[in-house]
Amino acid sequence: MKPFIYADHAATTKLDEDALAAMMPFLTGEYGNPSQPYAFGRKARQALQEARATVAACINAEPEEIFFTSGGTESDNWAIRGATFGNAPGRGIVTSAVEHHAVLRSCEDAERLGCPVSYLPVTEEGVVTAEMLRTAMLPDTGLVSVMLANNEIGTVQPICRLSAIAHEEGALFHTDAVQAVGHIPVDVKELGVDLLSASAHKFNGPKGVGFLYVKKGTSITPYALGGAQESGLRAGTENVASLVGMAVALQKNCLAMDKHTSHIRQLEELLIRRLRSANVDFIRNGRPGGIPGNLSLSFPHSDGEALLHRLDLKGICVSTGAACDTVSTQISHVLKAIGLPESYARGTVRISLGKSNTAEEAEAIARALISILR
Amino acid sequence: MKPFIYADHAATTKLDEDALAAMMPFLTGEYGNPSQPYAFGRKARQALQEARATVAACINAEPEEIFFTSGGTESDNWAIRGATFGNAPGRGIVTSAVEHHAVLRSCEDAERLGCPVSYLPVTEEGVVTAEMLRTAMLPDTGLVSVMLANNEIGTVQPICRLSAIAHEEGALFHTDAVQAVGHIPVDVKELGVDLLSASAHKFNGPKGVGFLYVKKGTSITPYALGGAQESGLRAGTENVASLVGMAVALQKNCLAMDKHTSHIRQLEELLIRRLRSANVDFIRNGRPGGIPGNLSLSFPHSDGEALLHRLDLKGICVSTGAACDTVSTQISHVLKAIGLPESYARGTVRISLGKSNTAEEAEAIARALISILR
Repeated sequence: MKPFIYADHAATTKLDEDALAAMMPFLTGEYGNPSQPYAFGRKARQALQEARATVAACINAEPEEIFFTSGGTESDNWAIRGATFGNAPGRGIVTSAVEHHAVLRSCEDAERLGCPVSYLPVTEEGVVTAEMLRTAMLPDTGLVSVMLANNEIGTVQPICRLSAIAHEEGALFHTDAVQAVGHIPVDVKELGVDLLSASAHKFNGPKGVGFLYVKKGTSITPYALGGAQESGLRAGTENVASLVGMAVALQKNCLAMDKHTSHIRQLEELLIRRLRSANVDFIRNGRPGGIPGNLSLSFPHSDGEALLHRLDLKGICVSTGAACDTVSTQISHVLKAIGLPESYARGTVRISLGKSNTAEEAEAIARALISILR
Repeated sequence: MKPFIYADHAATTKLDEDALAAMMPFLTGEYGNPSQPYAFGRKARQALQEARATVAACINAEPEEIFFTSGGTESDNWAIRGATFGNAPGRGIVTSAVEHHAVLRSCEDAERLGCPVSYLPVTEEGVVTAEMLRTAMLPDTGLVSVMLANNEIGTVQPICRLSAIAHEEGALFHTDAVQAVGHIPVDVKELGVDLLSASAHKFNGPKGVGFLYVKKGTSITPYALGGAQESGLRAGTENVASLVGMAVALQKNCLAMDKHTSHIRQLEELLIRRLRSANVDFIRNGRPGGIPGNLSLSFPHSDGEALLHRLDLKGICVSTGAACDTVSTQISHVLKAIGLPESYARGTVRISLGKSNTAEEAEAIARALISILR
């Protein structure tokens, strides 16, 4: 493989080596079905139990509040559908204009099934304010869903205040924390959320698994039917190896979070400083202090897709708007929602730095951008 | 690990070594998100494309008819829900009394949402006959779902004839082929099915992935919302490594199917012969010529669970009724449906032999059973 600079950590991350090592026994000799009662299933059962406890501890939850899923999309889909039909059939949903499509499309689906949905606007920094939410709450609001951190611009929402408002009005609160878990401190009790979604491959776990936190006592309909797994709410033989890998990766990232954050913030500053000192004209989207490493940069009269491809030719991987769905080349719903002028919005790239990036790489990305934009 | 005899291949199977080898690059260096347009995502994209083509070829389908899922349960859930609401809202479902719970619970859910469901009885061998289906078809029947092979007793259904009847009456036909794919020849065109579910870990692929075959032109609602993956019908970053592993495992099993079948049939016969020559009283459930290696044996005045545990103490892994859900100790719906006398039904174990079992192991299982039952 040609050497390259990976700066698209918001799209996916490299599987952690210790996570892979922890997975290997379950990809080889320990293949027993954890639902089977014989001794050979025991190690898989215990491993799942430990993985659940580890994941729970990382977000200050109880093990029985962690439901394993096939990833962030499933977690988001389940949260919206499950809470809408489990908690408040026919009651409304309040969400924001900058959510991931896994939330937005689920809300549209709920709307189609008779559940009114309102979409909160955001500030220029992409923030959902307490005032906005308060205005939007209606007596029939059953669920509020606002993401913890935005996948395109990195803005971290004031979830603690938002969830309090939802609860005052008797609604459940869900947060899509796919971009946050493993990257910023996430404490479900401090956040005051009832439901929280996460995806392993965003925090150096394997692709294909994630989890949904469901606060004890929260009424939610099952997502997958046909087996007793996940307390009967998410049937299907567990992906033992990957769930074990997820737990190891999450714990490792959480333990080293301060170190990673300070390293990544330095790289961010370095890159921005280089662009500024070369007099490059750009807007940095989002709110200061967002997800570490997330740099959504908009260059006037440029084309984001062309920038991405020219960076790719220089061996640098970045993203245009959203990570998960780059088929569309229109201006993303997030950039529209923050009111970015179209002349800038079209020239947007998202650079997302990770713990493994180096100062040399940040410099190289800046140099590449400068030479392309010149 | 203590040496043991694994005879629960219907519950799960060991990941094939070549499948694991094919997965490793995507668990290490090739971690790019296949949805991203840059060069680093290309290998993952191509690998997914090849995996889809391989899986399709193994069941005589087209690549664009294969939709990757998180496993058999998701495939079954999707098929029932997706076809019921995509094809025939409000129209009825006809299924059988011996389906896996992933199908049965989905049908109950559809019923709750206003979709009438009828459950076909089966013969003593567990067969759904063409006559039974013909009688049950109503003008409003929109979907027929009958499994290709039963997970408890191994009976293979006459899907070809059943699907023809469904189509005559204008209904779609789904088959849960989780126990069949990779073990008996499966040709979607010969079977005449519109939808077919499969699970990788049942054919030496990894846990946590599977697929749904959807015949071109079949109207089905999406299962997961929020991304363009799987033609927009099943959003979420693909589990690249495991999907690649699934394709390798399936292809390998299909290529060596005749050899495995003849080996496993010999083990079956050996085991049965040993029990008979020791004058053990038992009924073998199911229909001759079912899934290779599936031996559902009912011993009078015995307790299946106790048998399982005593075999476990001798280092032999078998199952009681169903594989996926052993929390319940009641007589399974399948054994009830075939009308097995209760005195036998309570003493049922399912031995499921696989390609890696040896004649010595079959002998040892027989010896263990004889000594326990004596």
